[in-house]
Amino acid sequence: MKLRLLIISILVELAGAALAHDNVPQINSDNSVTFRLYAPNAKKVFLEGSMIPKKRKIKIKSMTILRGQKYKMERVGDEWTYTVQALPSEMYTYRFVVDGKPTLDPKNDRRLRDIADTLNYFFIDGALANYYKEKEIPHGRIEYKWYPSTMNGMSQRRLAVYTPFGYDADKERRYPVLYLLHGSGGDETSWADYGRVCQILDEMIHSKEIAPLVVIMPNGNVALDAAPGESPYMDKNPKAMNLSSMLGKIEEVFPKEVVGYAESSYRIYADKAHRAIAGLSLGGLQTLYIALNNPDMFDAIGLFSPQTTNMLTNKTIGKMEMLDKNLMDFKAIFAILRGDIPSNTNMSSSFEKVKIYSDFETKLDVLYANNPKLLYIAVGEDDFVMKLVNDFRSQLDAKDYPYHYNLTDGAHTWENWRKYLIDFLPRISEKP
Amino acid sequence: MKLRLLIISILVELAGAALAHDNVPQINSDNSVTFRLYAPNAKKVFLEGSMIPKKRKIKIKSMTILRGQKYKMERVGDEWTYTVQALPSEMYTYRFVVDGKPTLDPKNDRRLRDIADTLNYFFIDGALANYYKEKEIPHGRIEYKWYPSTMNGMSQRRLAVYTPFGYDADKERRYPVLYLLHGSGGDETSWADYGRVCQILDEMIHSKEIAPLVVIMPNGNVALDAAPGESPYMDKNPKAMNLSSMLGKIEEVFPKEVVGYAESSYRIYADKAHRAIAGLSLGGLQTLYIALNNPDMFDAIGLFSPQTTNMLTNKTIGKMEMLDKNLMDFKAIFAILRGDIPSNTNMSSSFEKVKIYSDFETKLDVLYANNPKLLYIAVGEDDFVMKLVNDFRSQLDAKDYPYHYNLTDGAHTWENWRKYLIDFLPRISEKP
Repeated sequence: MKLRLLIISILVELAGAALAHDNVPQINSDNSVTFRLYAPNAKKVFLEGSMIPKKRKIKIKSMTILRGQKYKMERVGDEWTYTVQALPSEMYTYRFVVDGKPTLDPKNDRRLRDIADTLNYFFIDGALANYYKEKEIPHGRIEYKWYPSTMNGMSQRRLAVYTPFGYDADKERRYPVLYLLHGSGGDETSWADYGRVCQILDEMIHSKEIAPLVVIMPNGNVALDAAPGESPYMDKNPKAMNLSSMLGKIEEVFPKEVVGYAESSYRIYADKAHRAIAGLSLGGLQTLYIALNNPDMFDAIGLFSPQTTNMLTNKTIGKMEMLDKNLMDFKAIFAILRGDIPSNTNMSSSFEKVKIYSDFETKLDVLYANNPKLLYIAVGEDDFVMKLVNDFRSQLDAKDYPYHYNLTDGAHTWENWRKYLIDFLPRISEKP
Repeated sequence: MKLRLLIISILVELAGAALAHDNVPQINSDNSVTFRLYAPNAKKVFLEGSMIPKKRKIKIKSMTILRGQKYKMERVGDEWTYTVQALPSEMYTYRFVVDGKPTLDPKNDRRLRDIADTLNYFFIDGALANYYKEKEIPHGRIEYKWYPSTMNGMSQRRLAVYTPFGYDADKERRYPVLYLLHGSGGDETSWADYGRVCQILDEMIHSKEIAPLVVIMPNGNVALDAAPGESPYMDKNPKAMNLSSMLGKIEEVFPKEVVGYAESSYRIYADKAHRAIAGLSLGGLQTLYIALNNPDMFDAIGLFSPQTTNMLTNKTIGKMEMLDKNLMDFKAIFAILRGDIPSNTNMSSSFEKVKIYSDFETKLDVLYANNPKLLYIAVGEDDFVMKLVNDFRSQLDAKDYPYHYNLTDGAHTWENWRKYLIDFLPRISEKP
């Protein structure tokens, strides 16, 4: 009976838990990658992922956009297999599509949430993966914390904080700080999870590429106070398209709520010389306007694939209304983006008060009058925001305002945003 | 062109992100739950989850064990559907099995990793969910941090720390501490993710059921220094059955490495009266032996569905060897569990030195001579560890050693462990 109990104990522990295998997917010696899925009854299995070039064109309402391709996997007995050509060093995400259903790789425990999807990931060793992979080097800590915030009728919001190795050992030392903002569809976990902030910072600090710093990653989506599973407002699911909850809200309260809270809670320097801010996509737009409205606050400003507002005219607003009205209140948002609040739009009272996007040119002049150490703009040549970035650069060039421009290949992807962070950090850090 | 760019921007943001829907699965007014999956090409779809009674008997090597049933879903057009009878308040996990492949609910963003699986979850409102759901109450913070540890040739290990709301506001205040240990297959994220530690503690502190305390959740699996995605040792995937890496390792270094680190890093009281320790399953066994070997360290000891070592005899060791040798070094482990290291077994040098499991009865006497405030034992009547728990209780009863016994329904499940934590906490806390 006693033996039987132990065996039962072991078997029950086994039951329900897929025993994951090593080296999944299989990285071959030439860095080609072989994916395998056991699916004897499937009719059609596709592989999709970030390692596949985005080349497939799709048409939506007469618009042509680029989308990721899928690779059709080949049946070999009960298994489906596909080998992707030799890949450069990176962190790649992927999943299978089995008879039309997105399916995770049951043999790969590495999983990430991306907005409302869950994806597997793997690394190809080398230069870039050296920043992204977990290593036996001293680690900083990541914490998820709530701070008082009354936005959207809530009482608190969640943010993530990276503190470097050694933060707790020397209780007197102060650090520079980087405020790092996610994009549309993201939340306070995005930069740590997808952006590999802990691994990148650990590595760059350990290898003395940068001096230790604290990174504050707030949640800039006003509809959700926290990531899924942490927010009481789970009826508001994360959406890729959330302009209306990303824009015109957190920017206004940022200096007091986020910076004020961070400076009262962490040992960070509270002066312009030691404050940096950066954001991706719509978080880049937030970053730009937080800086414009607080010209004496940040000495370094990073715009990663930023969306900017300079494209918006009265003419486009009318056209945008052709799109599904239910998705968002376009007219109100664009009016705010323009700094112009027409009386005939149906806007909430909080929207009406927001002036964060007004007087762009004046604010830009004041920002540069304050002589920021660095305005950094990075974008990929296939990024759909390229035109917007070029328009913004033209405005800067016309006034001879200096900025650092990092034009890369690639598009609007986490691959680029991680690389931009690696490129940005040494520029805002004193040599350790 | 400008309009087009904006539309493209929006569409690209949309692409690839499933727009999640509200209220998935559908909780009906009588608390029955309707699950739906769009899968037009599927031949057979099952629903499995914690809301389904474990009644299916399976036979493995002449052993009969209970396993969860699956409910066969019904096709209605392109959708598959199943309605589960009215459920009591709880947090439930589930997934679909589509033509034999485990499949997440694409419309439910609530996802949890359980060892190597990912599952969806939902709540039925009421008494228990009141502890588990995210609410608009003051929140503590959760942080993931690395501490020096040389176990298994590594240099650091990761732990999770819950600090209550207000911890940062009053920089002088000290708190009682609970060390909370996961089971086989778990890691430092298990109690926070599956065990809802943040939500439970936030609620119990806010409603004044307990006084604020700090919870330290280490990683007791020596094979992995951190959860998947955080560990450099990802070739060692998480496994449900990891006796060999769970036992005889962390217990020995616990006082110095874990307690020592916690007390130097957090404002917690460093005396027996303010220290509690609890663990589930194999973490319960670790808890018991950490307490037995450090009888003056903890005033409260919680064993949740604990596995205990008193079942092990020389006779069983021989029989265990019938099982697959590759799974683990049974003989070595059982020798250690017995405190008896036979010279003819193939054990690592670190194993040979471990004496943590020896002299059980003597240590038990010393523990009770130190007069602990509480030894708490909780187990479900269908739990496979019931016999072991009863044997252990007999030993305590024979010596008239007092303990609190919480016999519940249910089995070896997170449902029970969460409930045990809720029952345990007020017993170790002074009234706030």
